[in-house]
Amino acid sequence: METFRQHLDKFITINDEEFALILSFFQMLEIKKKQDLMVDGEVCKSMFFVLKGCLRKFFINEKGIEQTTEFAIENWWITDTFAYEHQIKSDFCIQAVERSTILTIDLQMQEELLKKHPVMERYFRMIYQRAYAASERRIRYLYEMSREELYLHFSTQYPWFIQRIPQYLIASFLGFTPEYLSEIRAKLRS
Amino acid sequence: METFRQHLDKFITINDEEFALILSFFQMLEIKKKQDLMVDGEVCKSMFFVLKGCLRKFFINEKGIEQTTEFAIENWWITDTFAYEHQIKSDFCIQAVERSTILTIDLQMQEELLKKHPVMERYFRMIYQRAYAASERRIRYLYEMSREELYLHFSTQYPWFIQRIPQYLIASFLGFTPEYLSEIRAKLRS
Repeated sequence: METFRQHLDKFITINDEEFALILSFFQMLEIKKKQDLMVDGEVCKSMFFVLKGCLRKFFINEKGIEQTTEFAIENWWITDTFAYEHQIKSDFCIQAVERSTILTIDLQMQEELLKKHPVMERYFRMIYQRAYAASERRIRYLYEMSREELYLHFSTQYPWFIQRIPQYLIASFLGFTPEYLSEIRAKLRS
Repeated sequence: METFRQHLDKFITINDEEFALILSFFQMLEIKKKQDLMVDGEVCKSMFFVLKGCLRKFFINEKGIEQTTEFAIENWWITDTFAYEHQIKSDFCIQAVERSTILTIDLQMQEELLKKHPVMERYFRMIYQRAYAASERRIRYLYEMSREELYLHFSTQYPWFIQRIPQYLIASFLGFTPEYLSEIRAKLRS
């Protein structure tokens, strides 16, 4: 739990006792590679925080192909935020990319946590603020960059991305076919 | 100020006295159509809340063309979130689409506000949560929909969008040329 504590310490000031109380609202799960945490059509009940490992969110496009829209590694949250807030069915799936250790919380528990520990409002405010800031930039890149530039951008900005994520998932995230990704990589090497 | 009060009431519970105190942290501005609120290269000092009117955020692409990435109408916030949080230069511009009445707050005042009125942490947490949820869906649409589908989606989901926003800005937002937008509209009418 040291990881989570250090993560919280970046945003808020709490003592050991309060940390223990806060932690009791979360559930820890060990999940296997490729294990599903949420399947589309299910109500999105939980948010997931990665202590160790990697998760991804994807949807099945009209051609029946998995389209990855998000990855979460250590210290990142992942869920279908809209479906979670409204406790409705999600049209996304969430799955483990690697064997992972995660924390999960459901909406009712989160509301309880926020009521009893209002300092967590600040924590989640900052988490969402940063997530939103990142998505503003991502939307800009989607306007601005060619697919090749997107690949180059992700490889230089997020080296873990290229090192940890299987190539077929990188291709899925960037909207390439795996063949097109191989072509870009070959071109960049030459 | 009734608008802002009603807006806050959707998220938090405050009395008249507290509302007056909260309001004192914001500054009200009347701005003209096409007036700049932020120009790229400037430090992003403020967040803007639309009481009446419409703002947009855009960047200048490498061809020198304005690329609109976001609109804000009544009850929406707009800023360059990353540059605002870090108080660094923005590579976006923010400009009025219509004559507008807005509230603005800068980072130092916002921190003061949050310290004195922690209920506003909850308010901003929910605002960012919803903004992030909307951007998650928007990123999905960018993967999933053709340009024509995007136009159709925005016209049906946000009728104000088509009614209020000048056509050349709709084209800029959807990444079309104005000519291509006319073609789509003609095709949909036929």
